[in-house]
Amino acid sequence: MVETKQQAKPQRNIQPSDFSKLCNNPIRKIVDNIKKPATSTKELIPLSLGDPTVFGNLHCPDVLVNAIVRHTRSMQHNGYIHSAGSGAARAAIPQRYGNARAPLTPDDVIITSGCSGAIDIAVRGLLNPGDNILLPKPGFPFYQALCQPNRIECRFYNLKPESNWEVDLDHMQSLVDGNSKAILVNNPSNPCGSVYSKLHLEKILALAELNKIPIIADEIYGDMVFGSNVFFPIAELTKSVPVVTVGGLAKQFLIPGWRVGWVIVNDRNNILKDVRTAYLKLSRSTLGANSLVQSAIPGLLTPEPGSAEAQSLMDFKKRYFATLEDNAKFTTDVISEIPGLEVVVPQGAMYAMVKLHIDILTNIKNDLDFTQKLLDEEAVFVLPGQCFGMHNYFRIVFSAPHEVLADAYARLADFCRRRRSGH
Amino acid sequence: MVETKQQAKPQRNIQPSDFSKLCNNPIRKIVDNIKKPATSTKELIPLSLGDPTVFGNLHCPDVLVNAIVRHTRSMQHNGYIHSAGSGAARAAIPQRYGNARAPLTPDDVIITSGCSGAIDIAVRGLLNPGDNILLPKPGFPFYQALCQPNRIECRFYNLKPESNWEVDLDHMQSLVDGNSKAILVNNPSNPCGSVYSKLHLEKILALAELNKIPIIADEIYGDMVFGSNVFFPIAELTKSVPVVTVGGLAKQFLIPGWRVGWVIVNDRNNILKDVRTAYLKLSRSTLGANSLVQSAIPGLLTPEPGSAEAQSLMDFKKRYFATLEDNAKFTTDVISEIPGLEVVVPQGAMYAMVKLHIDILTNIKNDLDFTQKLLDEEAVFVLPGQCFGMHNYFRIVFSAPHEVLADAYARLADFCRRRRSGH
Repeated sequence: MVETKQQAKPQRNIQPSDFSKLCNNPIRKIVDNIKKPATSTKELIPLSLGDPTVFGNLHCPDVLVNAIVRHTRSMQHNGYIHSAGSGAARAAIPQRYGNARAPLTPDDVIITSGCSGAIDIAVRGLLNPGDNILLPKPGFPFYQALCQPNRIECRFYNLKPESNWEVDLDHMQSLVDGNSKAILVNNPSNPCGSVYSKLHLEKILALAELNKIPIIADEIYGDMVFGSNVFFPIAELTKSVPVVTVGGLAKQFLIPGWRVGWVIVNDRNNILKDVRTAYLKLSRSTLGANSLVQSAIPGLLTPEPGSAEAQSLMDFKKRYFATLEDNAKFTTDVISEIPGLEVVVPQGAMYAMVKLHIDILTNIKNDLDFTQKLLDEEAVFVLPGQCFGMHNYFRIVFSAPHEVLADAYARLADFCRRRRSGH
Repeated sequence: MVETKQQAKPQRNIQPSDFSKLCNNPIRKIVDNIKKPATSTKELIPLSLGDPTVFGNLHCPDVLVNAIVRHTRSMQHNGYIHSAGSGAARAAIPQRYGNARAPLTPDDVIITSGCSGAIDIAVRGLLNPGDNILLPKPGFPFYQALCQPNRIECRFYNLKPESNWEVDLDHMQSLVDGNSKAILVNNPSNPCGSVYSKLHLEKILALAELNKIPIIADEIYGDMVFGSNVFFPIAELTKSVPVVTVGGLAKQFLIPGWRVGWVIVNDRNNILKDVRTAYLKLSRSTLGANSLVQSAIPGLLTPEPGSAEAQSLMDFKKRYFATLEDNAKFTTDVISEIPGLEVVVPQGAMYAMVKLHIDILTNIKNDLDFTQKLLDEEAVFVLPGQCFGMHNYFRIVFSAPHEVLADAYARLADFCRRRRSGH
């Protein structure tokens, strides 16, 4: 072979970085490219995206609208703020989420660009390339999309559909080795809609304690629970395991596009002292979340008790969560009756995972095939379980108006009945 | 040595990631930790932070305030949008910044979380660990802060203060090798306040062309120029060199805290085809900028010609830039008269770099020493040149009200006169 002498000059058609080649957020890739099938005469019903604002039936609270209008007009929230968040926002988080069981100060808080930004800081500040993180399966695909280009190994612990998606603790333990640096727990869960009991969370904590591994708790759906289910912030159930909690305004206040989240370091024994500092350094490299929206955090999270705003926010939450609960029940009731489908009853958030009985559905290869054919024939779009690492399930987002859900489920029923074996 | 058998379990006091240890944004670190000296009786005058909103004399345009108020009330901009930005925002950028000399489509645009977010995508989508990037010296420290943890080598090309901070092209060429994957050009410049002529930009382009290296053009201060100086977008001056332009709303519309920037891929010969795709993938992993503020981009950048909004925005810009120009002149006039100081006349942006003649200033070791003593004795805070890689200079941000600048410069003059050699 002849060696070229022009090695010093890069080739034309410049190649992107290896990092970018490893970037892949499958759920966004699917959603960004969704197209209504050209042949369908039916209107598209997207029950795919975890965005409760798309149908216009659910609105963010008036308290928030009024605060943003007021603060926009004041022009007092236009400048740069501390990279970890405004003082008022960072103070509001401990007031709202801290207590004797999980004491917090503003120094434990970093305000981020969305909960994704919080997960990014939580993970990249703690784990090195070659370390591994334990992730739920099924789980939110962003976790893997984040870890992959950073060469953090993802080890997936099984959730058990037959036990309302509780963690298979034996399986989780079997994944742990000396390079396991974090266990990610997502409760309430996307995509499962599950809410863990206190007892189950304590078992997870015991496993973390035994292995001396900190927990990253994604609690973006905290408080969004149905019926007799109760949400327990995992940090409140331990005095020893360090817990990095991530959350945000997106889901609980219906503004996912506004990109305001937070990292909370719960660490009573100073085990994460250096990690807390690292998170601050990471926040300096991104300069954090929009100052205008941050200005609304105190009013949303810590309204004056007894004030009109507090009452208005309580009414808002009551209405909002009641709607989701009604939709959850309706979803469970209707889907249970459809041949070939089996729904795991959702306990919180805005999601239901539905199992496909492939054996009794004619000419359906798997969940991807199912969702594509459902989209083509019925213009109903749901995400295949494969997006979440779970084959032969699909996820329904049930935040749409009742009549839209009824229409979608009727089409889904037609679709499945047409494919019932022997028909 | 005795080998421990308990290697499998991580130690207590958990260490942060190596990545976070390499994260260091010196300018933010200084600014976030600034404290008024306890002994001073004078009010602190911070001429340190590149934020034109801090003194309250400069306000964002009414058109923007009205749009945000309207869009907040409409509740139509609360949901997730495309990770590369809303369709309307991505369409407005080509309409405003594209033309026959630099044709653009919405596919060439990614809306980001601030211009920092744009630089992050531009750099990390293009360069690998071990590659090098050519950066200006003096320059905005964020560039280095971004490259360092990503193990991208920074090579600093000299700017020549005696030629209004033009690039030392021989020095730039001497830095290029086969691993040089981008040249970053910041025009108008932070911290220099320089604006390059068409001829000088063409020389930089010729160097890039010769070496087949793309340019990353940080034009966040585009259009903010004084007197007879003209801003030339570098992408408009080449048909062959691929240019990735980054910019944003922050400085031109006085909302740095709102975090809306953009990446524009100018690439007529499809050299960056794969890089453009990579940028899109990177945007998917961050989910982009606040949807509410993005909703105001079309109205700000492409108001209907002849409309009241267009007129209002023109008046706003005229007033704003005239204020900056007056302040630039005042700064130059006053500082020139202070013994020991030598100002390089600013041509744009909101910055002036001032040279310290250490030889005639008693008991001043260097720029860091100067700025610390100036803060302690006169409560005037300016950033030492070291923040920008330039020793024995300091940077003044001159966006403050005239009377504040007058006060600050009087204190600065007192300070220098007290230290004049032989007095």
